[in-house]
Amino acid sequence: MSDSLSATLTALADPTRRAILARLALGEASVNELAEPFDMTLAAVSKHIKVLETAGLVSRSKRAQWRPCRLEAAPMRDVAALIQSYRQFWEQNLDQLDGYLKTLQTPKSDSKN
Amino acid sequence: MSDSLSATLTALADPTRRAILARLALGEASVNELAEPFDMTLAAVSKHIKVLETAGLVSRSKRAQWRPCRLEAAPMRDVAALIQSYRQFWEQNLDQLDGYLKTLQTPKSDSKN
Repeated sequence: MSDSLSATLTALADPTRRAILARLALGEASVNELAEPFDMTLAAVSKHIKVLETAGLVSRSKRAQWRPCRLEAAPMRDVAALIQSYRQFWEQNLDQLDGYLKTLQTPKSDSKN
Repeated sequence: MSDSLSATLTALADPTRRAILARLALGEASVNELAEPFDMTLAAVSKHIKVLETAGLVSRSKRAQWRPCRLEAAPMRDVAALIQSYRQFWEQNLDQLDGYLKTLQTPKSDSKN
Protein backbone atom coordinates (compact mmCIF):
# COMPACT_ATOMS: atom_id res chain seq x y z
CA MET A 1 0.00 0.00 0.00
CA SER A 2 2.41 2.62 -1.19
CA ASP A 3 0.68 5.96 -1.68
CA SER A 4 2.38 8.43 -3.98
CA LEU A 5 3.52 10.79 -1.20
CA SER A 6 5.23 7.86 0.55
CA ALA A 7 6.84 6.84 -2.74
CA THR A 8 8.14 10.38 -3.28
CA LEU A 9 9.56 10.56 0.26
CA THR A 10 11.16 7.12 -0.07
CA ALA A 11 12.73 8.14 -3.37
CA LEU A 12 14.15 11.29 -1.75
CA ALA A 13 15.41 9.39 1.31
CA ASP A 14 18.74 8.46 -0.23
CA PRO A 15 21.79 10.68 -0.76
CA THR A 16 22.66 9.13 -4.14
CA ARG A 17 19.16 9.71 -5.45
CA ARG A 18 19.19 13.30 -4.15
CA ALA A 19 22.54 13.82 -5.91
CA ILE A 20 21.06 12.48 -9.16
CA LEU A 21 18.17 14.93 -8.87
CA ALA A 22 20.58 17.79 -8.15
CA ARG A 23 22.49 16.88 -11.32
CA LEU A 24 19.28 16.77 -13.35
CA ALA A 25 18.35 20.22 -12.04
CA LEU A 26 21.22 21.42 -14.26
CA GLY A 27 19.75 19.72 -17.33
CA GLU A 28 18.97 16.37 -18.94
CA ALA A 29 21.59 13.64 -18.69
CA SER A 30 22.09 10.06 -19.80
CA VAL A 31 22.36 7.21 -17.33
CA ASN A 32 26.08 7.01 -18.09
CA GLU A 33 26.55 10.70 -17.35
CA LEU A 34 24.55 10.37 -14.14
CA ALA A 35 26.62 7.37 -13.05
CA GLU A 36 29.96 9.06 -13.67
CA PRO A 37 30.49 10.81 -10.28
CA PHE A 38 29.52 7.73 -8.26
CA ASP A 39 31.76 4.91 -7.15
CA MET A 40 29.01 2.46 -8.04
CA THR A 41 28.18 0.03 -10.81
CA LEU A 42 26.01 1.26 -13.65
CA ALA A 43 23.43 -1.31 -12.54
CA ALA A 44 23.28 0.19 -9.04
CA VAL A 45 22.84 3.70 -10.44
CA SER A 46 20.17 2.44 -12.86
CA LYS A 47 18.31 0.97 -9.91
CA HIS A 48 18.33 4.35 -8.16
CA ILE A 49 17.07 6.03 -11.34
CA LYS A 50 14.31 3.43 -11.56
CA VAL A 51 13.16 4.33 -8.02
CA LEU A 52 13.10 8.01 -9.02
CA GLU A 53 11.16 7.15 -12.20
CA THR A 54 8.61 5.07 -10.27
CA ALA A 55 8.06 8.03 -7.94
CA GLY A 56 7.58 10.28 -10.97
CA LEU A 57 10.61 12.42 -10.07
CA VAL A 58 12.49 11.47 -13.24
CA SER A 59 11.19 10.84 -16.73
CA ARG A 60 13.09 9.31 -19.63
CA SER A 61 12.70 10.71 -23.07
CA LYS A 62 11.85 8.30 -25.82
CA ARG A 63 12.77 10.73 -28.56
CA ALA A 64 16.54 10.27 -28.49
CA GLN A 65 18.37 6.97 -28.68
CA TRP A 66 20.36 7.79 -25.53
CA ARG A 67 17.04 8.29 -23.66
CA PRO A 68 18.05 11.23 -21.48
CA CYS A 69 16.73 11.46 -17.93
CA ARG A 70 14.87 14.58 -16.96
CA LEU A 71 13.89 16.06 -13.60
CA GLU A 72 10.16 16.05 -12.86
CA ALA A 73 9.63 18.18 -9.76
CA ALA A 74 5.82 18.05 -9.61
CA PRO A 75 5.59 15.25 -6.98
CA MET A 76 7.59 17.46 -4.61
CA ARG A 77 4.59 19.76 -4.27
CA ASP A 78 2.89 17.28 -1.95
CA VAL A 79 6.04 17.07 0.18
CA ALA A 80 6.07 20.87 0.37
CA ALA A 81 2.42 20.86 1.49
CA LEU A 82 3.13 18.24 4.15
CA ILE A 83 6.11 20.12 5.56
CA GLN A 84 4.29 23.44 5.31
CA SER A 85 1.58 22.10 7.62
CA TYR A 86 4.23 21.75 10.37
CA ARG A 87 5.97 25.06 9.74
CA GLN A 88 4.45 26.74 12.80
CA PHE A 89 5.99 24.04 15.00
CA TRP A 90 9.54 24.41 13.85
CA GLU A 91 9.29 28.21 13.75
CA GLN A 92 7.96 28.10 17.30
CA ASN A 93 11.02 26.08 18.31
CA LEU A 94 13.30 28.61 16.63
CA ASP A 95 11.52 31.47 18.40
CA GLN A 96 11.91 29.72 21.73
CA LEU A 97 15.61 29.12 21.08
CA ASP A 98 16.02 32.72 20.01
CA GLY A 99 14.29 33.91 23.16
CA TYR A 100 16.48 31.66 25.28
CA LEU A 101 19.69 32.88 23.59
CA LYS A 102 18.59 36.47 24.22
CA THR A 103 18.13 35.80 27.93
CA LEU A 104 21.69 34.47 27.98
CA GLN A 105 23.09 37.52 26.20
CA THR A 106 21.17 40.21 28.07
CA PRO A 107 23.00 41.17 31.25
CA LYS A 108 20.65 40.58 34.15
CA SER A 109 19.30 43.87 35.42
CA ASP A 110 19.37 44.38 39.15
CA SER A 111 16.16 43.76 40.94
CA LYS A 112 14.82 47.28 40.50
CA ASN A 113 11.50 45.83 39.52
CA MET B 1 25.32 5.34 6.08
CA SER B 2 22.09 6.98 7.04
CA ASP B 3 22.43 10.76 7.12
CA SER B 4 19.88 12.64 9.18
CA LEU B 5 17.99 14.07 6.19
CA SER B 6 17.54 10.54 4.80
CA ALA B 7 16.38 9.34 8.22
CA THR B 8 13.82 12.16 8.40
CA LEU B 9 12.51 11.41 4.89
CA THR B 10 12.34 7.67 5.62
CA ALA B 11 10.41 8.35 8.82
CA LEU B 12 7.94 10.54 6.91
CA ALA B 13 7.56 8.00 4.09
CA ASP B 14 4.80 6.04 5.78
CA PRO B 15 1.12 6.97 6.14
CA THR B 16 0.84 5.58 9.70
CA ARG B 17 3.83 7.59 10.85
CA ARG B 18 2.46 10.73 9.19
CA ALA B 19 -0.88 10.12 10.95
CA ILE B 20 0.94 9.79 14.28
CA LEU B 21 2.69 13.12 13.68
CA ALA B 22 -0.62 14.75 12.70
CA ARG B 23 -2.12 13.53 15.99
CA LEU B 24 0.86 14.87 17.96
CA ALA B 25 0.43 18.24 16.28
CA LEU B 26 -2.73 18.50 18.41
CA GLY B 27 -0.79 17.83 21.62
CA GLU B 28 1.16 15.22 23.56
CA ALA B 29 -0.20 11.69 23.64
CA SER B 30 0.67 8.32 25.15
CA VAL B 31 1.57 5.33 22.99
CA ASN B 32 -1.83 3.82 23.84
CA GLU B 33 -3.64 6.95 22.73
CA LEU B 34 -1.61 7.06 19.53
CA ALA B 35 -2.34 3.40 18.82
CA GLU B 36 -6.10 3.74 19.31
CA PRO B 37 -7.18 4.79 15.78
CA PHE B 38 -5.06 2.12 14.07
CA ASP B 39 -6.03 -1.44 13.33
CA MET B 40 -2.59 -2.55 14.40
CA THR B 41 -0.94 -4.17 17.40
CA LEU B 42 0.51 -1.91 20.07
CA ALA B 43 3.91 -3.41 19.18
CA ALA B 44 3.56 -2.34 15.54
CA VAL B 45 2.60 1.21 16.54
CA SER B 46 5.49 1.31 19.04
CA LYS B 47 7.83 0.35 16.22
CA HIS B 48 6.57 3.26 14.10
CA ILE B 49 7.02 5.62 17.06
CA LYS B 50 10.56 4.30 17.51
CA VAL B 51 11.37 5.19 13.86
CA LEU B 52 10.01 8.70 14.46
CA GLU B 53 12.05 8.97 17.69
CA THR B 54 15.24 7.84 15.94
CA ALA B 55 14.67 10.52 13.29
CA GLY B 56 14.21 13.11 16.06
CA LEU B 57 10.61 13.82 14.99
CA VAL B 58 9.16 12.58 18.28
CA SER B 59 10.52 12.85 21.80
CA ARG B 60 9.28 11.04 24.88
CA SER B 61 9.03 12.84 28.14
CA LYS B 62 10.68 11.22 31.13
CA ARG B 63 8.84 13.39 33.61
CA ALA B 64 5.52 11.52 33.64
CA GLN B 65 5.10 7.82 34.22
CA TRP B 66 2.99 7.49 31.04
CA ARG B 67 5.91 9.00 29.08
CA PRO B 68 3.92 11.10 26.61
CA CYS B 69 5.14 11.45 23.03
CA ARG B 70 5.69 14.90 21.70
CA LEU B 71 6.11 16.29 18.18
CA GLU B 72 9.58 17.61 17.37
CA ALA B 73 9.34 19.43 14.04
CA ALA B 74 12.91 20.75 13.84
CA PRO B 75 14.24 17.99 11.51
CA MET B 76 11.61 19.00 8.95
CA ARG B 77 13.51 22.22 8.32
CA ASP B 78 16.08 20.33 6.24
CA VAL B 79 13.30 18.73 4.20
CA ALA B 80 11.81 22.18 3.61
CA ALA B 81 15.21 23.45 2.42
CA LEU B 82 15.62 20.49 0.05
CA ILE B 83 12.18 20.92 -1.48
CA GLN B 84 12.59 24.70 -1.62
CA SER B 85 15.65 24.25 -3.82
CA TYR B 86 13.41 22.63 -6.47
CA ARG B 87 10.51 25.07 -6.14
CA GLN B 88 11.37 26.86 -9.40
CA PHE B 89 11.01 23.58 -11.27
CA TRP B 90 7.54 22.70 -10.09
CA GLU B 91 6.36 26.31 -10.39
CA GLN B 92 7.72 26.35 -13.94
CA ASN B 93 5.65 23.25 -14.67
CA LEU B 94 2.57 24.91 -13.21
CA ASP B 95 3.22 28.06 -15.27
CA GLN B 96 3.58 25.97 -18.41
CA LEU B 97 0.34 24.15 -17.66
CA ASP B 98 -1.37 27.44 -16.88
CA GLY B 99 -0.10 28.92 -20.15
CA TYR B 100 -1.30 25.88 -22.05
CA LEU B 101 -4.76 26.02 -20.45
CA LYS B 102 -4.99 29.71 -21.36
CA THR B 103 -4.23 28.97 -25.01
CA LEU B 104 -7.10 26.49 -24.93
CA GLN B 105 -9.50 29.00 -23.39
CA THR B 106 -8.56 32.08 -25.42
CA PRO B 107 -10.43 32.19 -28.70
CA LYS B 108 -7.87 32.31 -31.49
CA SER B 109 -7.58 35.82 -32.91
CA ASP B 110 -7.63 36.11 -36.70
CA SER B 111 -4.31 36.45 -38.40
CA LYS B 112 -4.16 40.26 -38.25
CA ASN B 113 -0.46 40.81 -37.90
